Amino acid sequence: MRGAILYAPGDVRFEERADPKIIHSTDAVIRTVATCVCGSDLWDYRGINPVEQPTPFGHEYVGIVEEVGDDVKTIQPGQFVIGSFFASDNTCVNCQNGYQTNCLHREFVGAEGCQAEKIRIPLADGTLVATPEQPDQEHIASLLACSDVMGTGWYAAVAAQVQHGDTVAVVGDGAVGLCAVIAAQELGATRIIAMSRHESRQKLAREFGATDIVAERGDEGVARIKELTGGIGADRVLECVGNSESMQQALRSTRPGGNVGFVGVPHGVSLDGEELFFSHVALRGGPAPVREFLPDLIDRVLSGRIKPGKVFDLELPLEQAAEGYQAMDERRAIKVLLRP
Amino acid sequence: MRGAILYAPGDVRFEERADPKIIHSTDAVIRTVATCVCGSDLWDYRGINPVEQPTPFGHEYVGIVEEVGDDVKTIQPGQFVIGSFFASDNTCVNCQNGYQTNCLHREFVGAEGCQAEKIRIPLADGTLVATPEQPDQEHIASLLACSDVMGTGWYAAVAAQVQHGDTVAVVGDGAVGLCAVIAAQELGATRIIAMSRHESRQKLAREFGATDIVAERGDEGVARIKELTGGIGADRVLECVGNSESMQQALRSTRPGGNVGFVGVPHGVSLDGEELFFSHVALRGGPAPVREFLPDLIDRVLSGRIKPGKVFDLELPLEQAAEGYQAMDERRAIKVLLRP
Repeated sequence: MRGAILYAPGDVRFEERADPKIIHSTDAVIRTVATCVCGSDLWDYRGINPVEQPTPFGHEYVGIVEEVGDDVKTIQPGQFVIGSFFASDNTCVNCQNGYQTNCLHREFVGAEGCQAEKIRIPLADGTLVATPEQPDQEHIASLLACSDVMGTGWYAAVAAQVQHGDTVAVVGDGAVGLCAVIAAQELGATRIIAMSRHESRQKLAREFGATDIVAERGDEGVARIKELTGGIGADRVLECVGNSESMQQALRSTRPGGNVGFVGVPHGVSLDGEELFFSHVALRGGPAPVREFLPDLIDRVLSGRIKPGKVFDLELPLEQAAEGYQAMDERRAIKVLLRP
Repeated sequence: MRGAILYAPGDVRFEERADPKIIHSTDAVIRTVATCVCGSDLWDYRGINPVEQPTPFGHEYVGIVEEVGDDVKTIQPGQFVIGSFFASDNTCVNCQNGYQTNCLHREFVGAEGCQAEKIRIPLADGTLVATPEQPDQEHIASLLACSDVMGTGWYAAVAAQVQHGDTVAVVGDGAVGLCAVIAAQELGATRIIAMSRHESRQKLAREFGATDIVAERGDEGVARIKELTGGIGADRVLECVGNSESMQQALRSTRPGGNVGFVGVPHGVSLDGEELFFSHVALRGGPAPVREFLPDLIDRVLSGRIKPGKVFDLELPLEQAAEGYQAMDERRAIKVLLRP
């Protein structure tokens, strides 16, 4: 089979690789129906994270099960499945608590690269969720979005404890930020402020439920949020970037007693204990336990209630993965869908 | 009247001072029935916070109302009252959200020193809560505890979202930590682990509801908590100290998806964003909105349900305030009650 490999910053190649096989009796192998490029892949693509050797890439996927190991009980060949970037047994105490990305037996599915024609999925029963039947083409992109960005946006809103009637601000207008707008609306927020400077993304944010757009950043962005919220800040703020500026912006845009959910993987973020203390703001983040939300999110997609697949504004054949990275790096695309 | 003044680290004097007067029409003046020394006063007493000029001290109080300003409607002369260390109007949006210590018009009551025979209380209607009748002597100490340490311990548990059936660990065995044990039990925790190395404090913690004691600190303390919690950590951890070590200990003792409530005023605490992210732990802290909890806490004290006054293991005449500081500094006393 063939798959994408990152050789060095800016150097993605599509090459012949060994077919994945069942290694453990709890594995499944799926034939990829769609995969994509993640904003977090750009940390490596841009050389901010070191790339020490040619590395298979990608961690988002939907596909058809080809083969399962002897101990796989619920997942069957032929099923259309969606899974998270972390494999989880879905039975350990952390999974039962709803934190499958902290599963005691978790494995990073992306370690073998999901931008490939086939993928080995560890702990298949705990990781994969099958759709009731083969989904229509129109739902593929939205189901793929549930594999990461929609699940991650959802977790941002859950971690921030968004509730009915809230004013929610979203920091970051990438695919996760845009999906966080969907999540805020689905969880009952009545006012949703999207922070974005890009017209096409502002438009999509509004389509997803944003009621206000704030183009300012930093202190000016915070001041604008406060202006829109009676001087105190938003009830909940969803941080979907992961750098020091975006985190400060999120914390300072939240009202006393409000919550920040942060899902951008932090790079160089340090928090001052005293400032956090006097802010009265609560903070929860982490790699989204997508598995926890998948059954619900799949229902919402198949019923047509949410359309997170709209974040894919460029679709390419998988073999053009390199062009997909480039388009996202240059911000020509919000998110790139790749089809084998 | 007379009151305690901190002249320099280690130098507390009891001196004649001007009687407090009604300055604003929303003020009250109370005659102090009991006041006390706070663990947080020791930051100044020990010279960790600079003492730039002779400063009236203390911020905890119960008393009898002597006089009220023209715009005070609900508080009346003769009432026995308890209030928080921050005056609040109890009507602004932050107060309505339950964060009276972030009141838009807050004033630090301790600014004029509550270790004194009389105290001016700003925003009397919003700040003070009167008991239904004059309380019995046996309840004075517990009502005084509600003014800060019991309210602060309560907030630690509320901020950490303690719920029925939880395993809760408490970091810090000062008066606030001990009151946090009471709060955890009242909020339904079934297992309460008190971290303490002092026999007398361990004993009081057990009396307040602690089911386990952990004497180890740092990495060993964390390991011991994990050992007691199936390897994952406590559901909720209440941080009641405020330094870097205690905060790390709290965060690392919490299970994925658990919560830390932190109420020790942070001194030199910096949090690593990436570690917090991958921990999945939520964090909320701040100066406790004691006013929010006072009516409920007063009920619990007067009904005999809780006895936080037991944290006072030394009682002195107010004029011996200096000896009170010394006893707490040397850890000869958990908390010192002062009576005019």
